[in-house]
Amino acid sequence: MKQSHLFTKTRKETPADEQAKNAQLLIRAGFIHKEMAGAYDLLPLGLQVVEKIKGIVREEMNKLGAQEMIMTSLQRKETWMETDRWDDEKVDVWFKSQLHAGGEVGFGWSHEEPITNMMKNHLASFRDLPVYTYQFQVKMRNELRAKSGLLRGREFIMKDMYSYTMSAEAHDAFYKSTMDAYTRVYNRLGLGEDTFITYAEGGAFTDNYSHEFQTICEAGEDVVYINREKGIALNEEVVNDEMLEKMNVTMDELEKHTTAEVGNIFSFGTEKTEKMGLSVANEAGEETYVHLGSYGIGITRVMAVIAENMSDDNGLIWPESIAPFRVHLISMSSDDEAQELYEQLQSSGIEVLYDDRDARAGEKFNDADLIGIPWRVVISSRSLENGGVEVKRRDSQESEVISIEELLNKLS
Amino acid sequence: MKQSHLFTKTRKETPADEQAKNAQLLIRAGFIHKEMAGAYDLLPLGLQVVEKIKGIVREEMNKLGAQEMIMTSLQRKETWMETDRWDDEKVDVWFKSQLHAGGEVGFGWSHEEPITNMMKNHLASFRDLPVYTYQFQVKMRNELRAKSGLLRGREFIMKDMYSYTMSAEAHDAFYKSTMDAYTRVYNRLGLGEDTFITYAEGGAFTDNYSHEFQTICEAGEDVVYINREKGIALNEEVVNDEMLEKMNVTMDELEKHTTAEVGNIFSFGTEKTEKMGLSVANEAGEETYVHLGSYGIGITRVMAVIAENMSDDNGLIWPESIAPFRVHLISMSSDDEAQELYEQLQSSGIEVLYDDRDARAGEKFNDADLIGIPWRVVISSRSLENGGVEVKRRDSQESEVISIEELLNKLS
Repeated sequence: MKQSHLFTKTRKETPADEQAKNAQLLIRAGFIHKEMAGAYDLLPLGLQVVEKIKGIVREEMNKLGAQEMIMTSLQRKETWMETDRWDDEKVDVWFKSQLHAGGEVGFGWSHEEPITNMMKNHLASFRDLPVYTYQFQVKMRNELRAKSGLLRGREFIMKDMYSYTMSAEAHDAFYKSTMDAYTRVYNRLGLGEDTFITYAEGGAFTDNYSHEFQTICEAGEDVVYINREKGIALNEEVVNDEMLEKMNVTMDELEKHTTAEVGNIFSFGTEKTEKMGLSVANEAGEETYVHLGSYGIGITRVMAVIAENMSDDNGLIWPESIAPFRVHLISMSSDDEAQELYEQLQSSGIEVLYDDRDARAGEKFNDADLIGIPWRVVISSRSLENGGVEVKRRDSQESEVISIEELLNKLS
Repeated sequence: MKQSHLFTKTRKETPADEQAKNAQLLIRAGFIHKEMAGAYDLLPLGLQVVEKIKGIVREEMNKLGAQEMIMTSLQRKETWMETDRWDDEKVDVWFKSQLHAGGEVGFGWSHEEPITNMMKNHLASFRDLPVYTYQFQVKMRNELRAKSGLLRGREFIMKDMYSYTMSAEAHDAFYKSTMDAYTRVYNRLGLGEDTFITYAEGGAFTDNYSHEFQTICEAGEDVVYINREKGIALNEEVVNDEMLEKMNVTMDELEKHTTAEVGNIFSFGTEKTEKMGLSVANEAGEETYVHLGSYGIGITRVMAVIAENMSDDNGLIWPESIAPFRVHLISMSSDDEAQELYEQLQSSGIEVLYDDRDARAGEKFNDADLIGIPWRVVISSRSLENGGVEVKRRDSQESEVISIEELLNKLS
């Protein structure tokens, strides 16, 4: 894409109403626009990052055999009454509205209840199980405080997956496969080294259990105690003498870190399906309640954590897997050669943002640093005299002049 | 995909609470689930159709040079006050809710105001124009009556595009290009022959003008008078002696049709940008209000119109361009050969739903008719004896036995 054509403009000044680094950088670089605290538009660059994160998550969920679908935001009161989660005293993040036709509707902050209700139409026998399904859905949460940019939103994109299995054993096997899939997701997003699976509740496979995926992040809201060597990570809430003994670790061996929760997985056993009446006939023909699991990844939150952790004073530093473009091509009064290289890169299947603007070098370089595309390629009469183009990775201080052939090899 | 793995089940009986044919068929075939009147989940088959419709629309909008983004559903009162469209007396389809943090929010039923507001951060000079941008967004409308299935939803997916241009001339040129792009979209969706551009208001390019794309559809809510030969289509509301004279047509030459609006395009001139204060410096350095156009296509509504118009007593009949799969492969006790053909088709890049279920032939055929995939391919010991597979198109009564090689040729 030509940068002259991109409608978003970068800005030097930090938005006055924004304390969070993730939102400050993403706004300044033109990835998002703030509608209100906790609600951000995804502008073209931001949408591309989000679609790439979704693409990685989708691939890994599909590998688990999960089927993609999408539920409504509008929610029926009756469905949520069945598990006693309609009342604002029970769930304090509901957005609710009156229907002009009469009655009340809610806006989905989670989808365990409606999806379980929907499944009653499709599951009748043990032969219909297991079922794994997921969606990328815009969740609405009426948060009292929304001050961490995209880390805690009132409106945000979440991947939520649900498993319906016949037995606790089948559930546990899928739950563990999902843990592995999540680990692959965070590795592919470049967050692998700083992301830990924590024991959120109990820490053992009891009937109801859950785990969180926590990424070390200064702007996060959680505290996790970590021992990298032993592979132990414990949420602050579950750290006590009993747990330390069980994990065979002492307090001295644990490092305290501020973290952001980037994923969570829950086992509900048959608690919800009993309340909602989702049962199937087992092999003996007896009605049996189905085991439910739920598995979330905050897609826009992941973008925020990456913006927090992979950035410097000059701007964003996207990992290649989710960068809006791979190459930022900058022309310095060599527009014909730049145009030719732009077409060459694109025909090699390489995504390029081509800065064809009539602007000063300093402005172009500052924008490139702020936007944070992994490879900066400058083409100028000087670079051409020296045999090619000047290449610099965003995460490095070093640049080198290489031939266009070498560049294409490097990128392929 | 193997049908044994698809979690949705078809059903014979028509849902008792659903009058609209589109919703009846889509529910029975397992494409959607009704959460409440006007709000439907997209189950895996339904999501695939919607994604394919979006794919076609995306291609055509990108060809116009438009950039994809996505706005929030949550809306600020202040933004809509500027054009006096916050008040329920002025706009009667708002869903609104109270923020726990204080104040009121709305849920987007349209996005002209917030996108124009956002553009103030990015447009400063005539050099920044034109800008064309679009989104696929879930709109929320608090409809008093929602009784036509996916034709009139409380929650539905819309493609809305916006153009910001310097002059009326530049606006008109883009407006006409969009008309052509829309015509290509409806042709590709298989609706071309029954879709007409109507003069919705005035019928001439005055300052504010609009056109609708209306598709002949019994379940529609509009009435359009059409003369195919002269290429004239007039919404009922604008038919009067003056208009007939202007169009050089008499009432006798017009056929009355019930139609569904599948797209609409509006020219706002500078009306909204004046109210909201979106101006840029022109070449002389003078602040000039920007010309705004808005261009909608109801994505889920298009799916509903296709379900209404392309179906028979046995079920849906998807056009190839948006069918959830191209081939419905049915094994009749020839599972090894079917599995081999399934893999062969997939490795040729052909999307296949493979009915590998242990079910009666009648059930498999009925399901295939109901789901409506374009090509039905039956593999059985009899078809293999006769030299291959039995092929039938969903929109034809004729079947033929052809070799697997011929099948692959036909589909490639």
